[in-house]
Amino acid sequence: MSKVAERTVKNLDRAFNPRSVAVVGDKQALGYMWLRSLSSFKGNVYSVQIDPHELPGIAELGVENYRGLLGIPGPVDYVIAAVPRAVAPRIVEDCIKKGVGGVGFFTSGFAETNTEEGIRLQQEITDLASKAGLNLIGPNCVGLYNPRIGLRHTVAQAYGEEGSVGFIAQSGTHATLFSIVGHHHGIKISKSVSYGNAVVLDSTDFLDYMGADEETEVIGMYIEGVKDGKRFFDCLREVASRKPVLIWKGGETEAGARATASHTGALAESSVVWQAVIRQCGAIKVDNLDEMVDIIKALLYIKPATGTRVGLIAMSGGQSVVITDVFAKAGMEVPLLTESSYERLATFFSIIGGSYRNPFDISSAFLMVEDPVSNLTNMLDIMDKDPNIDSVVLELFPVIRPLTQDHETAEPILDTISVFNERSQKPLIIIVTAAYSDALAAETRDKLVKRGIPSFSNFERAAKTLRKLADYHQSRREQSWN
Amino acid sequence: MSKVAERTVKNLDRAFNPRSVAVVGDKQALGYMWLRSLSSFKGNVYSVQIDPHELPGIAELGVENYRGLLGIPGPVDYVIAAVPRAVAPRIVEDCIKKGVGGVGFFTSGFAETNTEEGIRLQQEITDLASKAGLNLIGPNCVGLYNPRIGLRHTVAQAYGEEGSVGFIAQSGTHATLFSIVGHHHGIKISKSVSYGNAVVLDSTDFLDYMGADEETEVIGMYIEGVKDGKRFFDCLREVASRKPVLIWKGGETEAGARATASHTGALAESSVVWQAVIRQCGAIKVDNLDEMVDIIKALLYIKPATGTRVGLIAMSGGQSVVITDVFAKAGMEVPLLTESSYERLATFFSIIGGSYRNPFDISSAFLMVEDPVSNLTNMLDIMDKDPNIDSVVLELFPVIRPLTQDHETAEPILDTISVFNERSQKPLIIIVTAAYSDALAAETRDKLVKRGIPSFSNFERAAKTLRKLADYHQSRREQSWN
Repeated sequence: MSKVAERTVKNLDRAFNPRSVAVVGDKQALGYMWLRSLSSFKGNVYSVQIDPHELPGIAELGVENYRGLLGIPGPVDYVIAAVPRAVAPRIVEDCIKKGVGGVGFFTSGFAETNTEEGIRLQQEITDLASKAGLNLIGPNCVGLYNPRIGLRHTVAQAYGEEGSVGFIAQSGTHATLFSIVGHHHGIKISKSVSYGNAVVLDSTDFLDYMGADEETEVIGMYIEGVKDGKRFFDCLREVASRKPVLIWKGGETEAGARATASHTGALAESSVVWQAVIRQCGAIKVDNLDEMVDIIKALLYIKPATGTRVGLIAMSGGQSVVITDVFAKAGMEVPLLTESSYERLATFFSIIGGSYRNPFDISSAFLMVEDPVSNLTNMLDIMDKDPNIDSVVLELFPVIRPLTQDHETAEPILDTISVFNERSQKPLIIIVTAAYSDALAAETRDKLVKRGIPSFSNFERAAKTLRKLADYHQSRREQSWN
Repeated sequence: MSKVAERTVKNLDRAFNPRSVAVVGDKQALGYMWLRSLSSFKGNVYSVQIDPHELPGIAELGVENYRGLLGIPGPVDYVIAAVPRAVAPRIVEDCIKKGVGGVGFFTSGFAETNTEEGIRLQQEITDLASKAGLNLIGPNCVGLYNPRIGLRHTVAQAYGEEGSVGFIAQSGTHATLFSIVGHHHGIKISKSVSYGNAVVLDSTDFLDYMGADEETEVIGMYIEGVKDGKRFFDCLREVASRKPVLIWKGGETEAGARATASHTGALAESSVVWQAVIRQCGAIKVDNLDEMVDIIKALLYIKPATGTRVGLIAMSGGQSVVITDVFAKAGMEVPLLTESSYERLATFFSIIGGSYRNPFDISSAFLMVEDPVSNLTNMLDIMDKDPNIDSVVLELFPVIRPLTQDHETAEPILDTISVFNERSQKPLIIIVTAAYSDALAAETRDKLVKRGIPSFSNFERAAKTLRKLADYHQSRREQSWN
C-alpha cells in the first residue's frame, strides 16, 4: 500500500468509527431520513441547516442544529451532506477547514446527468477534496454503515451487533438491500459503504480499507466501473489472497453500461475483461444480490466442501427426482452409497412409499412414522460415515406433519439437525422449500438462522452455491500449492 | 383419436366430473386425508373400510361407511384407493364389477420398489384393469382434482371456482404444489391429475383428455417417462397445435433418471430426444415449478408480445442498471426512445436523482414527488405511444413511500397500472421486488392478482418468461404461415 493509500485508510477508519457525525441539509421532504437513521448512533449527532422552516422538525428529533459545520464545538469525524448540488463546493470547503474524517455526499445531479452544470460542479468538488486530501465519499451515494455503533443510512438497518462481512457498493440501493436481506440470512456486516460517482475515493480505496480491517473476514462488492484498473487489479489480487472477495459487476451488457453512465457516470468496460480479472485474482464472480447473499452465507456457515459428491435427502418422490436433476445439472455428483450403508438403511427404512438409493425419498421413513427423529438421526449418521459422500443436502418441507404439527414435534427435528451440524466434518446444506406456505417456510428459515444454520429457499440456489463454494475452495488449495 | 382412446376420454370425463366418490381404506394414520379433502365435494361421498377401529373416526366425519364397494347403493363414478398393496387386486376387481368411471390408487409399493412382490402385484392390477377397460390411475399417485366441484386431494387446495388450466403430473407433490402455488399467482385449474406409475393410463391419455376438454385452454405437464413414445408424439403435436402445452421433464440427468426409477418406475430417456420432441411439436420446455407457474401465468394474463424491445422502469439507479443487464442477458433489446418521447419526459422528469433514457430510474419522478400518480401515468403513456417499444416492464419496490405510506397513496398507483393494462395493446410486466420486506411484497403481489395483473418476484424470472413468451408467439406465427 502506498503512503497516500495508508493515509486514506487511516482517515477512513476515523470516518467508519466516528464519535461525532454531522448531517448537513436534512429536511422534511426527505422525512429527515438521515437524522432518524442516526437515532441509533452511539456518539454525538449534529444537524447543519439554515432553512428556518426545517428547524422545528429538527428540534423535535432532539438534535442540536448549527448554521454551519464550523460552528460545531469539537471535532466532527464524519459528515453526511444532503444539500442542493450548487451548495456542494461550499460544504467541501467547510469539511476541509473543519478537518473532518470524511464526508459522504447524498447530493446527486453531477456528471451522471451529463449536463454542463453537473459536470462543472463535480469537477469543482473533486479538485477541492483531492488537493486537500479530504476523504470525499460519493457524491450520489448513501455513504457509510457501521452496525456496531449504530451508524446507518436507513432506519430499516440492524444495529448493535458485531459483524464480519464488509460490503462495498457503487449503488445505494444495493448497499441497503444487501444489509437488510443479508441480515435475514444470518449475514452480519462489519462495515459497508455506498460510493456513487467515486470522484475522490473509488472501490480500490474501500477494498484497501476492508482488506486491512481486522473485523472484516469476507468482502462483497457491487461495482459499475473503476477509474484506475491497474491499481484495482493489484489491490484485488492482494486482498483476495487473504480474504474471500465476491464481485458483482453492474453494466455487463451494452444496454446495462448505458444505465451505469446515467446512474453513477461509470464508463463501460468489457465484461470479458472483468471475468478474466476476477478469475486471475482468485475472487468470486456473482451475478445478482441473491447469489451474493447465498455465497457469503455459505462461506460463513457451511464447512468447506472437499469434493462434489452429494447425498440428497428429499421429502417426497417428486422432490427427490427434481433435487437430483438440479444438483447434477450444477455439476455435482449423486453417487450410490456403500453396501454397509444400504444394510443399515434397510433395517428401518421402508421402500413402500419411499426410497434410499441416493437421492432419498423419505416419505415412508419420516413423514409417515410415529418417531421421525430417530430415523432422521440415523439417516444423517449414515451419510456422515459413508465415504462416498462429501456433503449432505437435506430438504425440509415445512407443511407436512411432523414439521408443523406442533412445536413439540418440530423442535426435536431442528435439534437433530443442529447436533449433526456441530459434530459432522461434512458440509450440511438445508433447503427449506416454500411448499404450500411461504410464511411457514420463512418461519422455519428464521428458526434455523437463530441456530446458526442459514438455509436456502430452493434447490437451484443451493446447488449453484455449493458448486461455487467447492470451486472456490478447490482454487484456493491449488493456489496455496503453487 | 382411436376408438379406444375415445372410450378412455369418455370414461375419464365421468371420473373427472363425478356425482359420487368412494374412498377405500382411508384411516387415522393418514389423518383421514382423503375424506377430509372431500369435505368440499358437491356430490355423494362414501367410505369403504373394514377395520372396526377406523369406523368411529369415519362416522365422526359424517361419512357413511360400507364394508365393500359393491354394497354402495347406486353408481360410483370415481374411487380413491388407499389400501395396503396386497389388497389392490381385490379392489380392482370390485371396481370392474361395480362399473366405476375410474379409480385412483394412492397405494404404493409396486414396481418402483424393484421387489418381486411389488412387480407381481403391479402386473396383476395392470392385467385386470386393461382386460376390463377400467380407467386405473396410478398406482402411487394422488389422482384427480376438479376444483369446480370440490374434488380434491388435499384440504390446502382451493375449490368452488372455474379454471382454464389443465395439469398432468406424474408426481403427486408437483400436482399439489402447482395447484397451490399457481393459485397464489392467479392460475385457476380446470382439472389436474397425478398418475404415478402409469400402468394403465399414461400421460398421453390425459393429454388426449385435456386436449378435448373445452374448459382447458392451457396444459402443463410434469413427466418422468412415457410408455408409447410414438403415440405421445402424435398426440402432443396435435394438441400443441391448438393449445399451449408446457412440459417439465423429471429425470433429465443420469442420476435424476435413477431417481425416477425409484419414484414411479419410469425408465430413462435421453434428454436430447425430449428436447427435440418438445420443439418439433411446438410445445414449451420448462425446467422447474417456478418456470411452469411463470409461463402459464404469462400466457393467461400478459398480452402476446410482438417483439423483444422492452421499456424498463426501475425504482432506483442501482435497480435500473441491474434490470437492464438481466433483460439484455435474456436476449431482450433495451432501445432508446424516440426524440418526441424524450421531449415529453423532459417536461416533468428531473434528471437530478433520476434518469429516463431507457432504463428509467424514477427516483426523482416518482419517489421524491408529491403527486407520483400523474408522473407514472405520463411515463406509461409515453411508453405506450413510443414505436420503439414492444413491451413495458415496471418495477414496484413496495417499501419506499409512496407505495406503502398508506392505503390512500398506494391504491391510486395500482389503479393507474390497472387502467394502463386495460387500455394499452402492449404487454405490461410488473415486477414486485422483495426489497426490505417479503411480507409487504407478497401483499402487493396479492393485490395485483386480485386486479388480474399477476406480477413477478424478481427481474430474472420476469425476463426469462417474457423471452420465452416472445419465442412461443413467434414460433406459433411461423407455424401458421407454413
